[in-house]
Amino acid sequence: MLKNRSFVLPLSKMPNKWINILYTLPEALTPLVDPATSQPLPVEALLPLFAKSLIEQEINTKDEFIDIPEEVQKVYSLYRPTPLIRATFLEEALQTPAKIYYKYEGVSPSGSHKANTSIPQAYYNKKEGITKLATETGAGQWGSALSFACNQFGLECLIFMVRASFEQKPYRKIMMQTYGGKVIPSPSDKTKIGKTLLEDKLNYNGSLGIAISEAVEMAMENNDTHYTLGSVLNHVLLHQTIIGEESKIALEEVGDYPDIVIACCGGGSNFGGIVIPFLKDNIVKGKKTQFIAVEPTACPTLTKGKYAWDFGDTGKLIPPALMYTLGHSFMPSPVHAGGLRYHGESPLVSYFYNKKMIDAVALQQIEVFEKAVLFAKTESIIPAPESSHAIATAINEALKCKETGEKKTILFNLSGHGHFDMAAYESYFGGTLENYDHPEEKIEEALKHLPQINFGCGND
Amino acid sequence: MLKNRSFVLPLSKMPNKWINILYTLPEALTPLVDPATSQPLPVEALLPLFAKSLIEQEINTKDEFIDIPEEVQKVYSLYRPTPLIRATFLEEALQTPAKIYYKYEGVSPSGSHKANTSIPQAYYNKKEGITKLATETGAGQWGSALSFACNQFGLECLIFMVRASFEQKPYRKIMMQTYGGKVIPSPSDKTKIGKTLLEDKLNYNGSLGIAISEAVEMAMENNDTHYTLGSVLNHVLLHQTIIGEESKIALEEVGDYPDIVIACCGGGSNFGGIVIPFLKDNIVKGKKTQFIAVEPTACPTLTKGKYAWDFGDTGKLIPPALMYTLGHSFMPSPVHAGGLRYHGESPLVSYFYNKKMIDAVALQQIEVFEKAVLFAKTESIIPAPESSHAIATAINEALKCKETGEKKTILFNLSGHGHFDMAAYESYFGGTLENYDHPEEKIEEALKHLPQINFGCGND
Repeated sequence: MLKNRSFVLPLSKMPNKWINILYTLPEALTPLVDPATSQPLPVEALLPLFAKSLIEQEINTKDEFIDIPEEVQKVYSLYRPTPLIRATFLEEALQTPAKIYYKYEGVSPSGSHKANTSIPQAYYNKKEGITKLATETGAGQWGSALSFACNQFGLECLIFMVRASFEQKPYRKIMMQTYGGKVIPSPSDKTKIGKTLLEDKLNYNGSLGIAISEAVEMAMENNDTHYTLGSVLNHVLLHQTIIGEESKIALEEVGDYPDIVIACCGGGSNFGGIVIPFLKDNIVKGKKTQFIAVEPTACPTLTKGKYAWDFGDTGKLIPPALMYTLGHSFMPSPVHAGGLRYHGESPLVSYFYNKKMIDAVALQQIEVFEKAVLFAKTESIIPAPESSHAIATAINEALKCKETGEKKTILFNLSGHGHFDMAAYESYFGGTLENYDHPEEKIEEALKHLPQINFGCGND
Repeated sequence: MLKNRSFVLPLSKMPNKWINILYTLPEALTPLVDPATSQPLPVEALLPLFAKSLIEQEINTKDEFIDIPEEVQKVYSLYRPTPLIRATFLEEALQTPAKIYYKYEGVSPSGSHKANTSIPQAYYNKKEGITKLATETGAGQWGSALSFACNQFGLECLIFMVRASFEQKPYRKIMMQTYGGKVIPSPSDKTKIGKTLLEDKLNYNGSLGIAISEAVEMAMENNDTHYTLGSVLNHVLLHQTIIGEESKIALEEVGDYPDIVIACCGGGSNFGGIVIPFLKDNIVKGKKTQFIAVEPTACPTLTKGKYAWDFGDTGKLIPPALMYTLGHSFMPSPVHAGGLRYHGESPLVSYFYNKKMIDAVALQQIEVFEKAVLFAKTESIIPAPESSHAIATAINEALKCKETGEKKTILFNLSGHGHFDMAAYESYFGGTLENYDHPEEKIEEALKHLPQINFGCGND
């Protein structure tokens, strides 16, 4: 008898509400603050940047659930519900008594979970009369998700892409163009800050910090334009809860519930997305599920960072939040092949970690690629390097079960496929990938430059 | 109310038999012949190349169905049943009264329908004691499907890849390596023919013909090694019938049946795969479904070729078959961006066409890419350039319905995604793609070199 591996909910069972965990937490999250005054940033300060509905979601503590607008559900239906897959081939290869499930978000148009938030972000902005969204992108993951979503709602999409990636990694750029997005190598002459920076040739290749600044300026200077972020913020994690919600319903249908939920963690959105619905059960129903956030040793925000007030970006444009951080000037070593390069961590995930509601581990990249290849050879999907951090940890947990004989149920988020990341696999096969020790001194140096904030538990 | 768009059969409804159309046809297909004698090639001549079970399937006229071995079904379950999708977003954009469905084969590990046959080919060879499979690949579509399948059955996989592609399109090569395949730039020093050819520097970049010769030699010279083909042959089309079978069951579940079935057509395997189950209904049940094979104007095998005996490859290694052909020396213009470059056509599809059981059209590539982009912008999937020929024809048929008011049900095969073909989209957006007129003179010239075969309706 063939074992059923793939569980796809019918569209009628797709959740029509996101889970607002801010409602459930025993205390309010600390707000973004004004670095000049250390006082909470007034909502008005964010209005030139973000849709009003998104700002309301960002600080909403009164609604347990937020309705997913029907227009958003309709575009979700292009790829959702996504499959929950029982990793029978991997289990067989590992000879583990554990049950391994993964939620596969790589079926989205842009190939990752990012579309779950780009769609509602485009929708709310459109509804509020905005005609253009500006954003930054590094390798292009977020840019392609936003480009796809803007096209669906008839918005223009302006993507400032770090010039080094624009020139060296053209394929994601072409994907963005296919969806109608306008991709601009950054720094550009489209913004004042870009023009100024271009005067120094050293800036020519760009950086994520510069691209953020250009996109933010574009939104500040144009009434018809807003800025968008693909991770970190509360409303982004809110939209991503559909991952965990669907996983929970599908697992219920097969009579299962996870003992461990695992996701990679950069800005925290795919982690928050799969974890929050189960973490809510821990809080409300006294469940004892373990949650593991997995980060690269090259950028060990949770495992080696400090819980402190820090800017959201290198350029100090995004106001300070209380979060785990390696310091806004921290840059991961170029030997690190994948994403998960953010110096900070979503304030929400940071709160979970600080309250010991979740665990975190950091992995070396060679182990991550070894296990990504094992996964590809068994389960057949070539995973994104980022998602492979979750795979590696799921394998490690399953191997522990093999030692102890425990029959745990392990769930992880396969947040994306690796079709646009084959160059990283090439480095791995070519033997040019290196492991990277915890960059203690670099972190120590970067942490010296945290802003002085005197709000709540201010930085020392 | 959200409209359900995606119909994925439960695993329990995945077909467990392939449809052997040779059983149903009113007459036996003409065999491969020995070019020296014009006599049918004895089965023994193929044994050094192919598994016995596959040769039996190639000529089987006595069984209406062939059981899909359980081991093959198990590996199929990694990605099958594939979704049948109602193109609601495209329909809305076209404002057509037609219903458009597509079967999406791009969810397979290697991203196309090719895995449907690589899996059974690997299985039967393994079962017969073969330890290594050799094949050729151009851009890498077939090579990655075979590499994936060999890995699942513990076979070595040796892929001779045209050197120009090996060097210029590294990503598919890395995909093959990820699945454990050994990719060798061709011509190589691993074979006698490769060594000889390498002596002339002009051959350095290779060609599909050379790569075929190397793979065939590898199989002829080594008892543990067989050769495999990814299209054209009857047993390949047999394995692909699962596409049409699943489509038919899924359509039945929603109470629909196609008026038109469309697929792109190169060697003919994805076309045969989706068409055969419905074409059998035309023969047996008197249904009147129309079938449209779509080819590029750059390689118009059915629409401009001759029904004649010809070699299967440029190097005259694959014995002559009766088929539509542009002549084995025909090479499509380099301005043509996608696949579908084969000079010949599957003998089975050729038979259908010759008997007027199917129609064929040829499309210019700029129209194909225009409609591929419309499809990506509406349905969200970036399609392979090959599959986009089917998309364009489906759109054209839907637009005809808009004119006439007919509510036809159109089904097409979306045989693969375009994640590894973004360079072709780049050419399109960059304006460097050109249309290409029917290459009449080139065809005339190539048709002068058909072999002289005096079997049945021999070549003139």
